Amino acid sequence: MAQDKMYLTNDDMPRQWYNVAADIKQWLTPPLDPANAKPMDPSKLAAIFPENLIEQEMSVERWIDIPEEVLEALVVYRPSPLVRARRLEKFLGTPARIFYKNESVSPAGSHKPNTAIPQAYYNKVAGVRRLTTETGAGQWGSALAYATNHFGLECTVYMVRKSFEQKPFRKSMMNMFGAEVIPSPSDKTKAGRDILTRMPDTPGSLGIAISEAVEDAIAHDDARYSLGSVLNHVLLHQTVTGLEVKKQMALGGVKPDVLIGCCGGGSNFAGLVFPFVPDRLEGKKIRMVAVEPSACPTMTKGVFAYDFGDTGKLTPLLKMYTLGHDFIPPGIHAGGLRYHGMAPLVSILIDQGLVEPVNRHQLACFEAAIMFAKTEGIIPAPESSHAIRVAIDEALRAKEEGQAKDITFLLSGHGHLDLTAYDDYFAGKLHDYEYPEEAIATSMKGLPKV
Amino acid sequence: MAQDKMYLTNDDMPRQWYNVAADIKQWLTPPLDPANAKPMDPSKLAAIFPENLIEQEMSVERWIDIPEEVLEALVVYRPSPLVRARRLEKFLGTPARIFYKNESVSPAGSHKPNTAIPQAYYNKVAGVRRLTTETGAGQWGSALAYATNHFGLECTVYMVRKSFEQKPFRKSMMNMFGAEVIPSPSDKTKAGRDILTRMPDTPGSLGIAISEAVEDAIAHDDARYSLGSVLNHVLLHQTVTGLEVKKQMALGGVKPDVLIGCCGGGSNFAGLVFPFVPDRLEGKKIRMVAVEPSACPTMTKGVFAYDFGDTGKLTPLLKMYTLGHDFIPPGIHAGGLRYHGMAPLVSILIDQGLVEPVNRHQLACFEAAIMFAKTEGIIPAPESSHAIRVAIDEALRAKEEGQAKDITFLLSGHGHLDLTAYDDYFAGKLHDYEYPEEAIATSMKGLPKV
Repeated sequence: MAQDKMYLTNDDMPRQWYNVAADIKQWLTPPLDPANAKPMDPSKLAAIFPENLIEQEMSVERWIDIPEEVLEALVVYRPSPLVRARRLEKFLGTPARIFYKNESVSPAGSHKPNTAIPQAYYNKVAGVRRLTTETGAGQWGSALAYATNHFGLECTVYMVRKSFEQKPFRKSMMNMFGAEVIPSPSDKTKAGRDILTRMPDTPGSLGIAISEAVEDAIAHDDARYSLGSVLNHVLLHQTVTGLEVKKQMALGGVKPDVLIGCCGGGSNFAGLVFPFVPDRLEGKKIRMVAVEPSACPTMTKGVFAYDFGDTGKLTPLLKMYTLGHDFIPPGIHAGGLRYHGMAPLVSILIDQGLVEPVNRHQLACFEAAIMFAKTEGIIPAPESSHAIRVAIDEALRAKEEGQAKDITFLLSGHGHLDLTAYDDYFAGKLHDYEYPEEAIATSMKGLPKV
Repeated sequence: MAQDKMYLTNDDMPRQWYNVAADIKQWLTPPLDPANAKPMDPSKLAAIFPENLIEQEMSVERWIDIPEEVLEALVVYRPSPLVRARRLEKFLGTPARIFYKNESVSPAGSHKPNTAIPQAYYNKVAGVRRLTTETGAGQWGSALAYATNHFGLECTVYMVRKSFEQKPFRKSMMNMFGAEVIPSPSDKTKAGRDILTRMPDTPGSLGIAISEAVEDAIAHDDARYSLGSVLNHVLLHQTVTGLEVKKQMALGGVKPDVLIGCCGGGSNFAGLVFPFVPDRLEGKKIRMVAVEPSACPTMTKGVFAYDFGDTGKLTPLLKMYTLGHDFIPPGIHAGGLRYHGMAPLVSILIDQGLVEPVNRHQLACFEAAIMFAKTEGIIPAPESSHAIRVAIDEALRAKEEGQAKDITFLLSGHGHLDLTAYDDYFAGKLHDYEYPEEAIATSMKGLPKV
């Protein structure tokens, strides 16, 4: 019988993260201080992040050791399998082979624990007692709740109020892992109280929740803030997935012809493709396709410029693809992809022509997700469905062209806590959003002058 | 690094199911006709089940080949891993080793597809066009929806109205896999209409839903009915789990000292332990512990007697442990364990002293479930938490006695669609139910005279 699952043992776990900055350092740009647009002094970040993570954020070392304690925590669910989607191939009638790296097997149901675990560890080592963070749909909050529980830290999650009400089960999961979940805006912070005074009925936003979490961390000496995507050290931690995939490809005779990931802040995509960047730089033919929603086309319609990471203008300025920090994406169900910016490291690779950005509409992605669920038996998260859509499109193109090739995508998470979205799809309540041209044009005007 | 996950390849998949009836046939008792309490004529079942499955139901062959088409469908999620719960052991400080067979990795999130897939296959082969079934909490309905979609059959699921309203996401999952889901009682059947006339506001019950599904199947020549537990052929299909576990134990040097499963109708427990029955009959020391809720103590407080499988008295009489077919268990959250009877094959093993039945209260099970989620990163179904509770109790006893042993339980499903139950637990809304002595005494009076 055909072997369709490539498992690795604990001994195959990567012992080091791969830092792509080492191989593209000639293109790196420094983060700028929001106060004066001068290169940021790392010490100014120390009230927000512990120094060991700030050091990682700035590092250009190619390989960074994974601490033993982090490895021990990762093997609870890692290495994750690389699986051939044979029934999906058959359904499509394609000569291409389709593989997926299944990150839905983690405690939070997504790739997010890959960075939540080391972040909790480094904070623990640095003497931090409590972590604060924000969460939208709840994937990141669940992951950090699990990781902080693992290392005996407390965890406070500011959850966008609308999601708090719409996705109660994500809150349940965070509670189960011992985190305190606060609907944002809240009366716990000045940022929250200010908003509540002005807009008592606001549904909240990720921008507001970030402000609350950062304020909470700065206000307490024993607390620090934790972010689930965008930053260099977050992408670094995610490279365990791509490093495993390389071993699994060697094991199963899979070629890295096309690698696909969905992109919100960029972390799952980066985790899959960064370890292949050296091969690409050596001239190997490897396509790296980053998929974003047509409703939030940061990479395909944005500009490569310095911008704030948040609406409240609290974060350092990062040079990245952006739609402007004031841009509020339409309410698509892939909440994790509704972000105005893109990780600087991913942005550089796009700018250099190494990464190929594409966008897809919501309905086509749901259609692909259901095809995948019916054939492969896993209901994907709405975010992951963007990667599936493009994998299917590539497989159909291979069929048209009568050409065999290997297509590998990262299944960033399952959709068990997103079934409302599927209900809405089946009920015909979802629609595609036009490219929000005017809103983007307006928000672009707010780009900081650097 | 320690190897805590025992994976098998597709080539290790069992090619035959193990039929325990072959080894205990001297104790078998025939099903009786509900009309006259005489041994049932198999041909009378043909309006409900296809003949190939009736044949399997009656078989005393020790090994039954798994058809190639079924194997091809099972390998989408099988073989499932046997995993050492090292962090749980550490948390408990036990000298025992704890292992779990992870059946939560299936499309429906439980062990149920192990029988849904062959049942759909055999019906397809027999020319059936549509399957009908009932579902309570929705695990079984989801599994059959997936399986019928796989083999191109239609599927109609009568879902207990209260669950239909309380667990909308199970319905979403069934819709995703293409099944029609009807809240029961409905106006689609005479049984449903009768109830609705008498009790328009009834929340429904499994007994009513079974009646509707059976009536629907009988009324349509091209439809048959499908059951998710209790029957011999269902338990037979589940033995893939125990057969895999035996190989995995050999691989990892694990001893079958104690095997544990939760018991509603008995299918997941049977799947795990049946393949060990021959060893036990040869005198090997293997404990087989069946865990039921204290609120529905079929095995620990019931009698071993002929009874109906349903409240509506439509099914054949089966000799089994029962609390009486009129018994309505208190509303514990482990909906899959709220059944008045127990699979005849499991009942025989209890009667013969081979299986050790125990019961546990709800709150202690939730406590165990949360311990497992925090240490091992998987949120279990409320049903599975009963097995976890006893595994933990055994591990704690081993600690007290200072004795090393290997404890293996079957994780029958994840709890991603049961998070409401956990919310209720954390909110202090759950309580334990006293042993429902009076209700059982009353229902026992209704046992058929045989």
